[in-house]
Amino acid sequence: MTVSRTAPGGGTKIGKVARKEAADGVADHNPLQIGELSELLGYVLKRAQLKVFEDFLRCMASLQLTPAQFSVLILIEKNPGRNQTEIANTLGILRPNFVSMLDGLESRDLCARIRSTNDRRSHILALTDKGRSVLARAKKLVAAKHEARLNELLGPDGRIALLDMLAKIAREF
Amino acid sequence: MTVSRTAPGGGTKIGKVARKEAADGVADHNPLQIGELSELLGYVLKRAQLKVFEDFLRCMASLQLTPAQFSVLILIEKNPGRNQTEIANTLGILRPNFVSMLDGLESRDLCARIRSTNDRRSHILALTDKGRSVLARAKKLVAAKHEARLNELLGPDGRIALLDMLAKIAREF
Repeated sequence: MTVSRTAPGGGTKIGKVARKEAADGVADHNPLQIGELSELLGYVLKRAQLKVFEDFLRCMASLQLTPAQFSVLILIEKNPGRNQTEIANTLGILRPNFVSMLDGLESRDLCARIRSTNDRRSHILALTDKGRSVLARAKKLVAAKHEARLNELLGPDGRIALLDMLAKIAREF
Repeated sequence: MTVSRTAPGGGTKIGKVARKEAADGVADHNPLQIGELSELLGYVLKRAQLKVFEDFLRCMASLQLTPAQFSVLILIEKNPGRNQTEIANTLGILRPNFVSMLDGLESRDLCARIRSTNDRRSHILALTDKGRSVLARAKKLVAAKHEARLNELLGPDGRIALLDMLAKIAREF
């Protein structure tokens, strides 16, 4: 048995049985056991969230919008006159990530940063005409493809129950 | 009104009314409107997941384990003899991220990479004695603090219903 260079044998204490079991293991094509992870809410939440985001990206392929970009455009639309920091904080996006996301949206002419006349250090965000039209198409795609498929999977009542529980966690946990 | 250097006025088309509204906006301390995001399952899922992960990190502060590190240790424990690629794929972790996570776990003497005797290109993962003991303490903390608080918030039936719906999304969506 060879210990890899990243795990010099001297430094690690692995039981002899486990070590032999591990190194002799013949090729095994069965799916792995995830043990107590299947009951761990955080794990299952993350797996579900990744699946939902993947589907969102597929549905939005023609418009090339990520879930985060879609959320930013909606917040800009719904909150005229509010600044960059407020939008980022509301969505829980870190400043450096938010700045680079806005760079991307601006370079595609979907939104603009406008220096505030009241506080010249602060930037107010506004949709461009193109941003407004892309957002309107995006909302239709989300409703017709993405949310419709989720509705089908969970049933309308299931979907509402799920939204309620998740909102409760987001608000109160 | 000054247009910021990142948004040259010539390139963007913002309706005059929106532009004036935006730039004149007086300081407003009301929370922002999130509009249709409150009904978008992907958005609410992500907010709930972030809250659950924050709580997990708090509960695990004394052991310094992230949710992803905890999942990796459980998978290594439950699947002796399986290699690095299988563990990463099962958890949906990209290879470069997984390699750097294993570097971290190994430097803390929680697990070791062992070169397989059957396929010398492949590394099998094993917990060290310290890794096994840290994982046992981590499981107790998760149950006593993190999952107990979620149970309290959702009620036992709510928690089971939520897990079922999320698992369905992860499996079938």
